[in-house]
Amino acid sequence: MKETFVKELVKPELRSPILVEGLPGLGLVGKITIRHLVRQLKARKFGFLYSPHFPYFVIVSKKGSVRLLRGAFYYWKNGDRDLILFTGDSQAQTIEGQYEISDRMLDFAKRCGVKLIVTIGGYRMEAKDKPKVVAAATNRELLDRALKAGAEVSPAGSPIVGTAGLILGLSHFSGIEALCLLGETRGYLPDPKSAKSVLEVLQGLLGFDVNLPGLDEEIAKGEKMVTRLQKIEERRVLEAEENKKEEDKKVTYIS
Amino acid sequence: MKETFVKELVKPELRSPILVEGLPGLGLVGKITIRHLVRQLKARKFGFLYSPHFPYFVIVSKKGSVRLLRGAFYYWKNGDRDLILFTGDSQAQTIEGQYEISDRMLDFAKRCGVKLIVTIGGYRMEAKDKPKVVAAATNRELLDRALKAGAEVSPAGSPIVGTAGLILGLSHFSGIEALCLLGETRGYLPDPKSAKSVLEVLQGLLGFDVNLPGLDEEIAKGEKMVTRLQKIEERRVLEAEENKKEEDKKVTYIS
Amino acid sequence: MKETFVKELVKPELRSPILVEGLPGLGLVGKITIRHLVRQLKARKFGFLYSPHFPYFVIVSKKGSVRLLRGAFYYWKNGDRDLILFTGDSQAQTIEGQYEISDRMLDFAKRCGVKLIVTIGGYRMEAKDKPKVVAAATNRELLDRALKAGAEVSPAGSPIVGTAGLILGLSHFSGIEALCLLGETRGYLPDPKSAKSVLEVLQGLLGFDVNLPGLDEEIAKGEKMVTRLQKIEERRVLEAEENKKEEDKKVTYIS
Amino acid sequence: MKETFVKELVKPELRSPILVEGLPGLGLVGKITIRHLVRQLKARKFGFLYSPHFPYFVIVSKKGSVRLLRGAFYYWKNGDRDLILFTGDSQAQTIEGQYEISDRMLDFAKRCGVKLIVTIGGYRMEAKDKPKVVAAATNRELLDRALKAGAEVSPAGSPIVGTAGLILGLSHFSGIEALCLLGETRGYLPDPKSAKSVLEVLQGLLGFDVNLPGLDEEIAKGEKMVTRLQKIEERRVLEAEENKKEEDKKVTYIS
Repeated sequence: MKETFVKELVKPELRSPILVEGLPGLGLVGKITIRHLVRQLKARKFGFLYSPHFPYFVIVSKKGSVRLLRGAFYYWKNGDRDLILFTGDSQAQTIEGQYEISDRMLDFAKRCGVKLIVTIGGYRMEAKDKPKVVAAATNRELLDRALKAGAEVSPAGSPIVGTAGLILGLSHFSGIEALCLLGETRGYLPDPKSAKSVLEVLQGLLGFDVNLPGLDEEIAKGEKMVTRLQKIEERRVLEAEENKKEEDKKVTYIS
Repeated sequence: MKETFVKELVKPELRSPILVEGLPGLGLVGKITIRHLVRQLKARKFGFLYSPHFPYFVIVSKKGSVRLLRGAFYYWKNGDRDLILFTGDSQAQTIEGQYEISDRMLDFAKRCGVKLIVTIGGYRMEAKDKPKVVAAATNRELLDRALKAGAEVSPAGSPIVGTAGLILGLSHFSGIEALCLLGETRGYLPDPKSAKSVLEVLQGLLGFDVNLPGLDEEIAKGEKMVTRLQKIEERRVLEAEENKKEEDKKVTYIS
Repeated sequence: MKETFVKELVKPELRSPILVEGLPGLGLVGKITIRHLVRQLKARKFGFLYSPHFPYFVIVSKKGSVRLLRGAFYYWKNGDRDLILFTGDSQAQTIEGQYEISDRMLDFAKRCGVKLIVTIGGYRMEAKDKPKVVAAATNRELLDRALKAGAEVSPAGSPIVGTAGLILGLSHFSGIEALCLLGETRGYLPDPKSAKSVLEVLQGLLGFDVNLPGLDEEIAKGEKMVTRLQKIEERRVLEAEENKKEEDKKVTYIS
Repeated sequence: MKETFVKELVKPELRSPILVEGLPGLGLVGKITIRHLVRQLKARKFGFLYSPHFPYFVIVSKKGSVRLLRGAFYYWKNGDRDLILFTGDSQAQTIEGQYEISDRMLDFAKRCGVKLIVTIGGYRMEAKDKPKVVAAATNRELLDRALKAGAEVSPAGSPIVGTAGLILGLSHFSGIEALCLLGETRGYLPDPKSAKSVLEVLQGLLGFDVNLPGLDEEIAKGEKMVTRLQKIEERRVLEAEENKKEEDKKVTYIS
């Protein structure tokens, strides 16, 4: 394996498919979004993307089997606009690998007849109660559709890092239009709440219907963990203050 | 995109064009210089340079559109010696990428009939009131012209890092002459004052006429920021001294 | 040498050979295992693997001779199931190099008629008295044979890093089955005890008979070194405590 | 320039030439050795080695001219055994680059009819009065000649890093014999004394006669610098002790 390649398992006949991509990144927003879609839509796996630019280890599965890190393509038949979903274990580990994987994905998308790609990721921001979704696109009409579906325009000058961004940058070489949706997230923990916001926009945009409350359990679990981490942090601060006071007493005695 | 390449938008007919290059680097001297020239001369974009050795993110524009990091070529019709201007978002991120991008630029320059390239950059030096410009060149006659235009000879043994340097090093393989002009700069902030010094030399050298006072506003803004940063620093030092004194008092009490 | 390659010294005729691989890694378990097999079975060297992805130095031998870092293939004639043994000086130093070396090993194995590869490594774990051996495999029947021979199923989700893992991940592209055996080890010192556990499983699995007590001397030496290191550490802790007490006395005087 | 290559300036007719190589490394022993030989023998430059694996900057010469980092080949006519000398500005900056440059040097050596290469470097060791020279070679007879000329056998197991080592490791693929001479050096400062030791061995080995006292001035200068650095260090230690005493006084007052 000298280069990134896609291994097709079956060749489904797809009508005007739209590709939705979400690899691991900030808050795992992209990966959680695609994983939820795959489960809710019962999408079917039809190909893998392998790359020598992924990390150099394999993963042991539940039954002692082993597999390379990879990306996976799924399809979902939906009247006259089918969906292709893509997620994976990792981003490429080198700059050149990042460009190569995005290139290979665009090649494959083109071969599948894809005219529109939506990439999903996280956007680092201390979100209010409900994470917002910011959008950028390769054409204005596409962006407007995302805004109508509830997204806001991504702040000018901000970078979109990794595959979610590069696919947009490289897409015009393949004659494919692309839209990027980024959910606000603090980024350091898996963030299903942000993924839910993205899914709401995606649903409005693409006109399918997934069970969004299905994410609520995961969100509750995530919030419990955050609360627990916050308590640990608060206790740490309190103890540090206590120690400080003890120290200060000593100093007081001295003077 | 496996390799760096130039995408031409139009093919202007250029007469004995001179290429002036300035990518981001110390004090952004190269980039500010080219940007000012492009604006003042109303030069027209005619090509992009893309590379898988640029950082792996895209940039969001004001209207939510997205683009790859890239370099851009501009041309300006000027009697019988036209100008090609080149600047961009970033330098290559790997050693081999640095060599590849300089190579590709020289290929493209040759294809455009370029016989002379001027590269612009910054030179780390605590400048007096007016930043000096140091020069190095692939032939003596070229260097002399730069000296006549107000530059000084670059100190022997000093390195010229990145594209501004490599283009000179690689140029003789393409039969192109090249000159490098480096403006003195502290380097850690955008330095339009240094760019102005470079532009004065460049003007004398190439015989065009740009509105240099046009940079003065940017310079004033830059100096205000430096002053503000210095005040913050001074206050920080003062506070540190105050704290020190308080500490010392305690120690005095002890002994 | 632009790429990893295998240099064959002789071309032995091998019957249904099984390849057993063990490069340096955690606790050197893989390397010690293969080295012991080579010695005990008096296996014969028949090829080298060279790679520009190994570290860029050479090693001086006892007689002032010099050699590149490399891997070495050995064979052992054993009725109708011969063995090929592989070990070496180092793992590849880059991600892409890791994939390339595993690829080249699989190519070579295929050329030798290999249908089964066993890779050996270490698994970071504070082992009880006797290190366990965990296993993962490309098919269930193979895994079951390892379990019967005394191994346990590798925990789900755990990564297998380096060549020992990648060979399993890449093997199905070559139509070769593969099994990975990892001996528990603390990992920071050569661990012949862990290698012995692996050898016991390997022996049961492949049905050969090596002198395992032959490793006991090496184990004893290793344990002596651990004991010595522990004593040094204990003394260090004691001294630190003494110093602490002295410090505390001073503080006591103060208040 | 996608790959390392040699640019020949002239094609001298050389009789059974021996190539002596010394790039920058520990104590600059290799580079100082070759530089001294080039000067003393008035050897003539006949080729350059360029590589995209050298650092990405250029160097300004005394007269404001500029050049790429590179290696340079020199020749010296000497009866029926001519010499080729090689030194340069830098080692390759990546692992793969290190292998590529050594490969290219061997290709070029072969093309020049070279049957023997001597590589020069430093060996980290607190040397007694006179630095020793350790040797390793691709065959025993060659090593013996070096021992007769005053070298000692390099300690077994020690690595020889960089081009000086890789050329030996790779040389048998080209059917060229190679010897490595390493001068003892502390390594952190240019070490002409170590180079002198190497030159003595080299002279005995190859039977030419260079003015070794010519290095003595450089050695004296180097030793002055070491003495100066040592005095600075001693003063620093003294001051630290003074400060310590002052601190201790305070503590004494407290208790």
